[in-house]
Amino acid sequence: MLVSALLTSLGINSGLCVLFFILYSILRKQPNNYEVYVPRLLAEGNSKRRSQFNLERLIPSAGWITRAWKLSEEEILSSSGLDAVVFMRVITFRLWIHFSAVYIVTIFICCLLYYEYKYISSKRIAYFYSSKPQPHQFTILVRGIPVSVGSSVSESVESFFTEFHPTTYLSHVVVRRTSKLRNLINEAKTSYNRLLHLQSKPSQQKCRRIGLFGQKVDLVDHYGKKLEDIEQNVRLEQSDVSLAEETRAAFVSFRSRYGAAVAFHLRQSINPTQWVTEEAPEPDDVYWPFFSSSFMRRWISKLVVVVACILLTILFLIPVVVVQGLTNLSQLETWFPFLKSFLTITFFSQVITGYLPSLILLLFLKIVPPIMEFLSSIQGYISHSYIEKSACNKVLWFTIWNIFFATVFSGSVLYQVSIFLEPKDIPAKLAVAVPAQASFFIAYVLTSGWTSTASELFRIIPFICSLVTRCCKRTNELEVPSIPYHRDIPRILFFGLLGITYFFLAPLILPFLLVYLCLAYIIFRNQFINVYMPKYETAGKFWPIVHNSMIFSLVLMHAIAIGIFTLKKLPMASTLVFPLPVLTLLFNEYCRKRFLPVFVAYSAEVLIKKDREEANNPEMAEFFDKLVTAYQDPALMPIQYSVNSDSLNSPLISAEV
Amino acid sequence: MLVSALLTSLGINSGLCVLFFILYSILRKQPNNYEVYVPRLLAEGNSKRRSQFNLERLIPSAGWITRAWKLSEEEILSSSGLDAVVFMRVITFRLWIHFSAVYIVTIFICCLLYYEYKYISSKRIAYFYSSKPQPHQFTILVRGIPVSVGSSVSESVESFFTEFHPTTYLSHVVVRRTSKLRNLINEAKTSYNRLLHLQSKPSQQKCRRIGLFGQKVDLVDHYGKKLEDIEQNVRLEQSDVSLAEETRAAFVSFRSRYGAAVAFHLRQSINPTQWVTEEAPEPDDVYWPFFSSSFMRRWISKLVVVVACILLTILFLIPVVVVQGLTNLSQLETWFPFLKSFLTITFFSQVITGYLPSLILLLFLKIVPPIMEFLSSIQGYISHSYIEKSACNKVLWFTIWNIFFATVFSGSVLYQVSIFLEPKDIPAKLAVAVPAQASFFIAYVLTSGWTSTASELFRIIPFICSLVTRCCKRTNELEVPSIPYHRDIPRILFFGLLGITYFFLAPLILPFLLVYLCLAYIIFRNQFINVYMPKYETAGKFWPIVHNSMIFSLVLMHAIAIGIFTLKKLPMASTLVFPLPVLTLLFNEYCRKRFLPVFVAYSAEVLIKKDREEANNPEMAEFFDKLVTAYQDPALMPIQYSVNSDSLNSPLISAEV
Repeated sequence: MLVSALLTSLGINSGLCVLFFILYSILRKQPNNYEVYVPRLLAEGNSKRRSQFNLERLIPSAGWITRAWKLSEEEILSSSGLDAVVFMRVITFRLWIHFSAVYIVTIFICCLLYYEYKYISSKRIAYFYSSKPQPHQFTILVRGIPVSVGSSVSESVESFFTEFHPTTYLSHVVVRRTSKLRNLINEAKTSYNRLLHLQSKPSQQKCRRIGLFGQKVDLVDHYGKKLEDIEQNVRLEQSDVSLAEETRAAFVSFRSRYGAAVAFHLRQSINPTQWVTEEAPEPDDVYWPFFSSSFMRRWISKLVVVVACILLTILFLIPVVVVQGLTNLSQLETWFPFLKSFLTITFFSQVITGYLPSLILLLFLKIVPPIMEFLSSIQGYISHSYIEKSACNKVLWFTIWNIFFATVFSGSVLYQVSIFLEPKDIPAKLAVAVPAQASFFIAYVLTSGWTSTASELFRIIPFICSLVTRCCKRTNELEVPSIPYHRDIPRILFFGLLGITYFFLAPLILPFLLVYLCLAYIIFRNQFINVYMPKYETAGKFWPIVHNSMIFSLVLMHAIAIGIFTLKKLPMASTLVFPLPVLTLLFNEYCRKRFLPVFVAYSAEVLIKKDREEANNPEMAEFFDKLVTAYQDPALMPIQYSVNSDSLNSPLISAEV
Repeated sequence: MLVSALLTSLGINSGLCVLFFILYSILRKQPNNYEVYVPRLLAEGNSKRRSQFNLERLIPSAGWITRAWKLSEEEILSSSGLDAVVFMRVITFRLWIHFSAVYIVTIFICCLLYYEYKYISSKRIAYFYSSKPQPHQFTILVRGIPVSVGSSVSESVESFFTEFHPTTYLSHVVVRRTSKLRNLINEAKTSYNRLLHLQSKPSQQKCRRIGLFGQKVDLVDHYGKKLEDIEQNVRLEQSDVSLAEETRAAFVSFRSRYGAAVAFHLRQSINPTQWVTEEAPEPDDVYWPFFSSSFMRRWISKLVVVVACILLTILFLIPVVVVQGLTNLSQLETWFPFLKSFLTITFFSQVITGYLPSLILLLFLKIVPPIMEFLSSIQGYISHSYIEKSACNKVLWFTIWNIFFATVFSGSVLYQVSIFLEPKDIPAKLAVAVPAQASFFIAYVLTSGWTSTASELFRIIPFICSLVTRCCKRTNELEVPSIPYHRDIPRILFFGLLGITYFFLAPLILPFLLVYLCLAYIIFRNQFINVYMPKYETAGKFWPIVHNSMIFSLVLMHAIAIGIFTLKKLPMASTLVFPLPVLTLLFNEYCRKRFLPVFVAYSAEVLIKKDREEANNPEMAEFFDKLVTAYQDPALMPIQYSVNSDSLNSPLISAEV
């Protein structure tokens, strides 16, 4: 195993160093060896050969270190000439190279970040200019609609927008509660799939006894009838629901992008909790199931989710502690004595200490993105892309906290929290703890990075699922997945953090990271061509997360550098590093002001230009016709059974790949 | 002195308590006194009269306290009946009353804050509805105007707004650099005042020799000529400056309030650092001297000011430490031995310990508001009201840090900073330190509160200034001051903080505060009637500062309460108080969402209603004519010499009060 090889090499080298030090300390005191170790002093007559033997001569001492340290530059100059001074300065420069590396790398990364931000901003605007008219550009979502007694939500919206936005207002769609309907539709789909499955089977299998003594019935007929019943139900509910159960939210469409932007940017009502506007997502991107419209309810659910995330982060430390236990063989032996004989075999012990911990961590981490996605989905976001973005953020901080800090400060939760309650001690503690975990993180890059990227290519879980469902599959429906950004972006960013924090502590991690990044580059390009299909487009709204995470990594690296320079008694270097985090944060602040607004909303200039460009486009009339119904809840439309087959009449068209 | 009286009373009472405790501890052990102290035990035969004498009987012991503490409720019930239990619960309830007080007061203050915020928001909107059309409602300030080669700023503004806001754009005024002109005008005004002063003197004083051997000249002629020269210069410069030295900022006026709001709320340009919009202040409120227009320069000056504020806060601690030294007589005696005989006089020592410290602090604090105002003015704010609001914030946090925390944690700067670097220890340290300073803060309320409010009525500094200038006054100009909010609001808020943090530690502070607040109420009402005249109107934009400061006071109070309950070994109470700061902060968050937007900008509904109301008003045409020139730099207008006298032709009209 590589880790053990690493450790062995480190051990041997350190051992050799210590041995040489000790030998030198002892041997230089022996008169016989003066020719070897202090020939100069001998020649100058500063040292006499002491012939009498005493015990001191056999005890290794470090006095020469102090003497060598105290020697000033002038003393070296006078005694050994300029060449020696220059030679010593070369060594000091080696010592200071870490320091300059910190500065250079920071400046380099900041420059990269600046140009990348700039490039992506300009790309985003270019994308907007080149885009066709899309419903979400003309639409806003309004929540907290106040309703006076005797009128409906729809009437309220109509009267408000015709009063205050008479020239730009086009239409609106009130959001309705359709969870019951959605269940019915799901039921219908299940029945339909079963029917499809039966139809594709040879005819003798289509009959089955109902119950133990029941008659043989034609199952196709049975399910067909059931399906018709459900469809009837759905149609009934659809005609019914359009009269009742309006939520206090609506998608309001405008005649121009600028009109929509004005309504979005200006607070509409005197009461800031009413007529709350939001940019509408793309129609396919709307997340219908959890559509809570009231201001207070969304606020409270947000608080609940924050608490849940914190709890999850704390509870997750239990597997991490177990993982830490596994890396410690002796502790494992005391816990599970029966493993003793097993663990004496080198191979197993190496696997357990070197590979298993990161594997277990990795498996536990697999569960996190779905959990975070679920938490984000109940937080009241209206679109899949917002949910994914929020989950991405959650997973990222979860990873940083639970992998980086929990591994570095292995210990109880309280101990970890207590570290962050004493901010001034953080650099010192980091400086002690971070370098100690270098080998663990190299192993982590190997398991989590290499293996998971390779398994991304192999698509292990979809492959197993496909194997299982192939035996009993009931549908030819083909679902093209979209890439789970909230799973992959945090992982890559976490490796970025490892690279930045470890580059000057354990540069050995860099080649591994480089290999990982190259692998990921090739594999994800391949997957984008062959596997994933985007379901919606945020036009690069993920970038600010990446930027913030990089800035955090830099500041963390500075904190570690300060800690290490302080530990190594280089207060000068430590003081000189100090402005770096401040400057980095200022740089971040500048970027926030310079680029972030572009990712929040488009400017008036851009919107008006785009609107004017299309003013005389004859296709716009057709587009506005479509826009009126673009935000219909899919649950209120006729049932769409699958991507390839539209109705019961053509159930056997199989998907072509 | 009240403080010494307080201390004496406290001393005597504590002394008596201790004496009684000791006497009880000793006497209860003497067999002769058993009838008095333990008659019950005697009657039950649980205690025998020990007749033999031993030393232990004379040493006061605290064992009975432990015994009394350990007694459980059941034991009391069984031995002394329910009445005793109820009586004990009454005492415990006394103990817990502080705890409930913390809850009740917090809820009470939060309710008050909520209703006050609501009331002021509604007042603000009502004020807006009832206001006449004002230039600043129709105008925005645009900075960071990009200029293409060969065109002026004015042309750039004109083309941009006619292109993107063709229906609502009315006019614009480019801001120019006029510092040189402003100096000239000031010079002219000084000359004018001197002339005025000379003209009012008897004629024989009007002549004076110029130089030692110079001729007698008519001084009136001399200054008149000088003034004419300067005026000529000013006119030249005015015609010249209108061609050159445009800054990249302009006031842009619109035809409707809504039009201005749309331009203000929407980011105008692709590059977020160009065409930066801001709400325009009232024309009289514009702060012309320091008009830096570039995005980067404003950002950097802001950073510089923040650093300056931090430095000031740290350096200010020197007088505070001196003040702390003064309250400590023995330290003073070692510093200034010659004062020894002087300090033995009770009166002087009482003055020094009781009154002088807060007086010195007060005098030092007098300098702070002008300094903070200066710092805010170079921060790039465009109006006096913003400068004042920002100064108000600065002075408030300065006061809280340098008076509250510096007094409470008297010690070196580093010690104070170190406290805030270990947040988990703050409650415990506050609990020890805050109650110890109660008497100092009562004295502070007396000096700073009572005296300064009384001196506000007496207007001591303006009175002295008036006395001085009356002898050598050269002008009859009457300047009506506006109230310096940035001086008075932080003071009142600081007393609010004292009241909230000390109400359960030293309720004695409350009557003093009450008297102060009553005094301030009457005096400031009087001053508003007789002295101050508002120069501009922010329509209550100061309120969020007040709200935030109250929330901070509450959370500080909770921290102290948690510390004290922990110290007094009431972990239960301490745990129960814990949700309170969290809830308070949530309440604050809710208020921010519910009310703060109203203070930031008016909503579309309000603006459109107001615009429509005035659409058919015939006075609007006249108003728009005025609006075009409303934001002319006063330095570019003809010189206005004083409030009462408009030109040189009527110089002798004296101000009538």
